[in-house]
Amino acid sequence: MPKMMRAVQVSKPGGAFELVERELPEPASGQIRIQVEACGICHSDALVKFGAYPGLSLPRIPGHEIAGRVEKVGANVTEWKKGDRVGVGWHGGHCFVCNACRKGLFINCERQQITGISYDGGYAEYVMVPHEAAARIPEKLDAAEAAPLLCAGITTYSPLHHWGVGPGQKVGIVGLGGLGHMGVKIAAALGAHVVLFTTSPDKTADALRLGASEVVVSKDAAAMQKHAGSFDFILDTVSAVHDLNAYLELLKLDATLTQVGAPPQPVPLSVFGLIFKRRRLAGSAIGGIRETQEMLDFCAEHGLTADVEVIRIQEINAAFERLKKGDVKYRFVIDMASLR
Amino acid sequence: MPKMMRAVQVSKPGGAFELVERELPEPASGQIRIQVEACGICHSDALVKFGAYPGLSLPRIPGHEIAGRVEKVGANVTEWKKGDRVGVGWHGGHCFVCNACRKGLFINCERQQITGISYDGGYAEYVMVPHEAAARIPEKLDAAEAAPLLCAGITTYSPLHHWGVGPGQKVGIVGLGGLGHMGVKIAAALGAHVVLFTTSPDKTADALRLGASEVVVSKDAAAMQKHAGSFDFILDTVSAVHDLNAYLELLKLDATLTQVGAPPQPVPLSVFGLIFKRRRLAGSAIGGIRETQEMLDFCAEHGLTADVEVIRIQEINAAFERLKKGDVKYRFVIDMASLR
Repeated sequence: MPKMMRAVQVSKPGGAFELVERELPEPASGQIRIQVEACGICHSDALVKFGAYPGLSLPRIPGHEIAGRVEKVGANVTEWKKGDRVGVGWHGGHCFVCNACRKGLFINCERQQITGISYDGGYAEYVMVPHEAAARIPEKLDAAEAAPLLCAGITTYSPLHHWGVGPGQKVGIVGLGGLGHMGVKIAAALGAHVVLFTTSPDKTADALRLGASEVVVSKDAAAMQKHAGSFDFILDTVSAVHDLNAYLELLKLDATLTQVGAPPQPVPLSVFGLIFKRRRLAGSAIGGIRETQEMLDFCAEHGLTADVEVIRIQEINAAFERLKKGDVKYRFVIDMASLR
Repeated sequence: MPKMMRAVQVSKPGGAFELVERELPEPASGQIRIQVEACGICHSDALVKFGAYPGLSLPRIPGHEIAGRVEKVGANVTEWKKGDRVGVGWHGGHCFVCNACRKGLFINCERQQITGISYDGGYAEYVMVPHEAAARIPEKLDAAEAAPLLCAGITTYSPLHHWGVGPGQKVGIVGLGGLGHMGVKIAAALGAHVVLFTTSPDKTADALRLGASEVVVSKDAAAMQKHAGSFDFILDTVSAVHDLNAYLELLKLDATLTQVGAPPQPVPLSVFGLIFKRRRLAGSAIGGIRETQEMLDFCAEHGLTADVEVIRIQEINAAFERLKKGDVKYRFVIDMASLR
């Protein structure tokens, strides 16, 4: 009889998450098996729920904001041993030979595998990943609060770090959701003067608590105009179609707006806004494993974690309904003890 | 009786260019008077013809692609003397105290004056400009062929230089007009492997003659797809609304597409194209005077000039009609001897 584990899977597009028993996978060479302590619920897990990711095959166990401990290692695993506290994010496997891998940018691997999409993810008692997909979570961080760092944390840390955000800079964060709330915390910890842009005035108090120095309601054209041409960097976390041009106008000469939210339809872009101050619009996806480790260490040093609402696995379908309405501050995290 | 000069002016929005006599301006402190040898006709001169530039007052003498010789200098002019070969482009006056000026980026001056828009330009026997607006044109360059370097030349050289185009790189130039033909020449002279993108297959032979190594007809989706993810840099010179996303898909990881053509309406931008390879979309406007001098010296060293069709001043209205249809290879230049 094979050993079994409990997990939550999606078996048909749009179907509910189902609690199932699955065979416990055995680590092959270069793989590690992690006992999952906590797994965050990312918006992009909906890509699994609705069978919407290209090449996805169902059934699939979602989940790529994983915090846990190494429970068993396969052959040729040198970096990890049983009991190590680790996290796993989106980047779940790499070819090591493409141009991006050779630059050490595994996250941009041309043949990348994605945790919880290409193979079974973290909504389970155990998850098995290639050893290079794990980063060390400092012991001082709580597992549930650390789990979202592996996706929401690195997705905001990576562009803030890549474009050199630091002390003395004025930095905008657009949107205060799972990504935005981490963007505010990290940009503030990096020493920037942080301005949070939101369509909801009732998010003001929370933004200030999280580390913003100012809050601008983006629907208020006069309030926006006051900041014209004054930002060193803007990180836009909004994935709905919205007016990028209004934010581009707020950038200084040679400054960059980086989009990490991905609106599903094309957005109208006014090229003039880019031309006259040699501004830049860039994209950024998640972040590599080296940067993920750096981010985890940075968060431990500064006492940063995600603001989470911990749920039991039995509440997952209800949580997804609330997520659709944006009703969470700021990340649902599943406590995997509830599976056992 | 004041001394007079002959010139061409626009006196009402949409009106024809009129040959007139104007008072010869006397250089004040810090100004130089240039005897114009040749002046290029830039598409943006239409902003004067149609009275479309914010704050423009008519009558106005257009022209910002000026090649000539210093004929008289005002007080406190140390850099220039009578007889010096100089050129003047878009950047016609600067405040020296704004953030951009203090970085030496006069072209981005927040209070910039524009030659031929803020004050009278180069469609005249003489033009008067602030001394900092002139660059030295090497004697070996022909005046008519050099004049368009002051706008079309620097507008393409500046982004190619700023984003580090050089040997071993694969560089795309989109569009083969006044800007594009200089982009091809300069990128090739910088050592890049140049691919010209055009909607007109009949431009192929000319593009190869100008220095392109390959020509891709952008309407051919299969030909475009062959180049996916392979470009180090793309310079887009097209000012009509067109599909930027198709070009963004051709960029490598971390590579930049810079737009120097300015479509009048917003263009649809797919953010996914930026996110997955951390690509960048930037704008660039003309280029500063320091870079203009560098570009002129580079062009002299490499024997580069614009391909021009020299006209007499009396042909200017007909030339503008042809320009609207794109019927010029690749720049009209007015020979100012025809004014005298």
